[in-house]
Amino acid sequence: MTKPIEVRNPRTGKLDYVIIPPPPKLLAQQCNRARRAQTRWYQIGLEARIAAIQQWKQAILSGREQLTEALVNDTGRLSISLLEIDSFLSSIDRWCGLAPELLQDSAKNTAIPFIALQQKSVPYPLVGVISPWNFPLLLSTIDAIPALLAGCAVIIKPSEIAPRFVAPLMTAVNTVPILRDVLGFVEGAGETGANLIENVDLICFTGSVATGRKVAEVAAKRFIPAFLELGGKDPAIVLESANLELATSAILWGSVVNTGQSCLSIERIYVAESIFEEFYHQLVAKAYRLQLAYPTVESGEIGPIIAERQAAIISDHILDAVEKGAVIHCGGKVEELGGGWWCRPTVITQVNHSMKVMTEETFGPIMPVMSFPTVEEAVYLANDSIYGLSAAVFAESEAEALAVANQIDAGAISINDAALTAIMHEGEKNAFKFSGIGGSRMGAAALKRFMRKKAYLIKTNSSSDPWWFDHG
Amino acid sequence: MTKPIEVRNPRTGKLDYVIIPPPPKLLAQQCNRARRAQTRWYQIGLEARIAAIQQWKQAILSGREQLTEALVNDTGRLSISLLEIDSFLSSIDRWCGLAPELLQDSAKNTAIPFIALQQKSVPYPLVGVISPWNFPLLLSTIDAIPALLAGCAVIIKPSEIAPRFVAPLMTAVNTVPILRDVLGFVEGAGETGANLIENVDLICFTGSVATGRKVAEVAAKRFIPAFLELGGKDPAIVLESANLELATSAILWGSVVNTGQSCLSIERIYVAESIFEEFYHQLVAKAYRLQLAYPTVESGEIGPIIAERQAAIISDHILDAVEKGAVIHCGGKVEELGGGWWCRPTVITQVNHSMKVMTEETFGPIMPVMSFPTVEEAVYLANDSIYGLSAAVFAESEAEALAVANQIDAGAISINDAALTAIMHEGEKNAFKFSGIGGSRMGAAALKRFMRKKAYLIKTNSSSDPWWFDHG
Repeated sequence: MTKPIEVRNPRTGKLDYVIIPPPPKLLAQQCNRARRAQTRWYQIGLEARIAAIQQWKQAILSGREQLTEALVNDTGRLSISLLEIDSFLSSIDRWCGLAPELLQDSAKNTAIPFIALQQKSVPYPLVGVISPWNFPLLLSTIDAIPALLAGCAVIIKPSEIAPRFVAPLMTAVNTVPILRDVLGFVEGAGETGANLIENVDLICFTGSVATGRKVAEVAAKRFIPAFLELGGKDPAIVLESANLELATSAILWGSVVNTGQSCLSIERIYVAESIFEEFYHQLVAKAYRLQLAYPTVESGEIGPIIAERQAAIISDHILDAVEKGAVIHCGGKVEELGGGWWCRPTVITQVNHSMKVMTEETFGPIMPVMSFPTVEEAVYLANDSIYGLSAAVFAESEAEALAVANQIDAGAISINDAALTAIMHEGEKNAFKFSGIGGSRMGAAALKRFMRKKAYLIKTNSSSDPWWFDHG
Repeated sequence: MTKPIEVRNPRTGKLDYVIIPPPPKLLAQQCNRARRAQTRWYQIGLEARIAAIQQWKQAILSGREQLTEALVNDTGRLSISLLEIDSFLSSIDRWCGLAPELLQDSAKNTAIPFIALQQKSVPYPLVGVISPWNFPLLLSTIDAIPALLAGCAVIIKPSEIAPRFVAPLMTAVNTVPILRDVLGFVEGAGETGANLIENVDLICFTGSVATGRKVAEVAAKRFIPAFLELGGKDPAIVLESANLELATSAILWGSVVNTGQSCLSIERIYVAESIFEEFYHQLVAKAYRLQLAYPTVESGEIGPIIAERQAAIISDHILDAVEKGAVIHCGGKVEELGGGWWCRPTVITQVNHSMKVMTEETFGPIMPVMSFPTVEEAVYLANDSIYGLSAAVFAESEAEALAVANQIDAGAISINDAALTAIMHEGEKNAFKFSGIGGSRMGAAALKRFMRKKAYLIKTNSSSDPWWFDHG
């Protein structure tokens, strides 16, 4: 019934791994089992849930080598894989630390003397997660950890492009029986994701706008909440007063880290006319210092392009820009090395908004730099996008930068640095435009998204008259 | 192009009012104008917005007679119309009082020493509201007031069944120029509602499940949030220990107020076997004391059925129950009097979940009473529904009632009273199952739904190195 899916290795291009999507009936069964187990998971209480998740963490630490190896095979990169595992483990600790306060029910007196109010939060029984290939471990667990602590069961469908990490992760899950019953993975591609949405009570999706919209529509039909974290085309604005040394270092990193395969990558750079030349010269000089991580994972900073179809998109964006008059200062082509696809940090000038590289998500280490005559024009250009995920603003003073940030339609704006959302998990933020919909994935709201509020309204006086005798 | 819609008077059955839906282009223009005006509305600040809304309130008070008359013609009832106007006016004051604290932006230090966090909330530019006929004034403004205070522009499409109140309300709006630019009404039926969704940035809908699902699907396609408040089939559970005097009074009121035309009406009553006989005898005796508000609005408590199509549904539910063996103890038929449709409070026993009156929303003064052998069975019956809006539990002790409330899948549960959500606006609650989706309409969350969070992540040390030099 269901066909096996062969998985490509991003460094060798070889199909060296296979996953077998579950038949729809089996998937439905797995979801029903998880939903049944959720009742107990919720009832054992937060302390027991924290203990189970910490046990899982210990098991992950014991099998850390296998997990690292799998992630490296999934993504072809080493240092980011290590970072991913560290971030994942510390997110477990962070949420375990925050959950007790966030999950406290409250009772309070009300403005009406004869009514008492008790508030209780109850978890959605079964949360589905559909995650992408660019940070396979982090983005499959970013919603799952708070959902599990809230008391939900969780079933995750990771990307079929980078599924190797699932086996070692599940080995660790299987050492904790009570967790194994409420945390599952399903392997497969789009069809399996669609089946998952049909069987859960809430869906979290991280991925493309096109697929995200389909997810939202199916969720709407089924009347379940959909939390979508989609693409970005993050602009950086460098004002005349900015520290160029800082701006070029931060923007370079924000653009090329993980080979640009990050939703919060800087993908467009707007620089004040007076400093434009100096800015891009510095940027090019720094870009030249970065090396491909080839032939070995430790040869340099820039890993391979993970998804073959993305290599074609990056190439297309570069060609489109050049055809329309853009000038390339370094990098500039997607090349095959040893079966994998690679692209060196690429600085492009003479760009404008008729080019795909300025309007569509490139997801590569590409830095198109455009000058602006006035701050108004910079704000206009930054907002001239279907996306509104995040942004960065560089200026001498915080106040000057914030005045610009105030005018940018995006959920998170780094000031005098890039992509700070990657390390700062406290700030609540909502996506603007096509970058997403649903509650904040950061801050306390991230956990509260997985719960519904119940209000108990209690008549507290002993009279036999209902309230409307006096108030109706 | 657009056909006029004739509006029926619920007391006389006459078509004595006409509305003219705007052509789609005109509606789009109106929305664009409101969205443009929103920029200024937001920028003038909360204090000025509160002042404008309070000015509106004063104008409403001056034109109160016209508003009352229109509402009485819309709904055929007097005392509930007066209550509606009072509740509406006090909701203005309540929100004006709460908004300053809710709209405060915050700045805080973070766990990372070199990053400062500022949180800012920005309103969705244009909120659309589609509201029903059962509480025409209250339900068209319940979302609009907090949205306006948040800084949104709002366009409301009230039900084509009860649109007369709009004219006097707009007369009052027109006395406040800045408010007039950002608060509009459009008249029309479903098609106009659909057009509205295509032109707003967020949609609030109160109405049926069938239409609500369509709204959610269009909103998903357009990538805008949809807050849906849909039907209910609220159960009341009366435990053996309950105060019967209180329970029968509260449930009678909760079932028949506004002729049962309320989403939070009690529509199913489950009573412990041992007190079942006594309970329904008391309920019938009290029901007999209520009179129809006919021939005049002051003749009695029970107003006409507002929507002609609802009269047919109520009749159908009663007939279906009788055919399947139910016994009627009072009321029991939908009758025509003077051109309007009427139904006396109706107590029914020998009911079960094969009957529409126990499973579908009746929206009439109908009280089907069913006995239960065990508390488990009562909980099972209460949850055996596609709805999960609210509920009521009666017991001697609060603890006994809360233990049952804990097991009921509904957002608001009144303890030893009915429909307390009608007067208690502080408790946050989410709808369960098909009763709705989106944030809580009650409590602080109600206002926050209309804003997106932006996070400003500020690098605060003066080093020229971006964060990843130390942390990457």
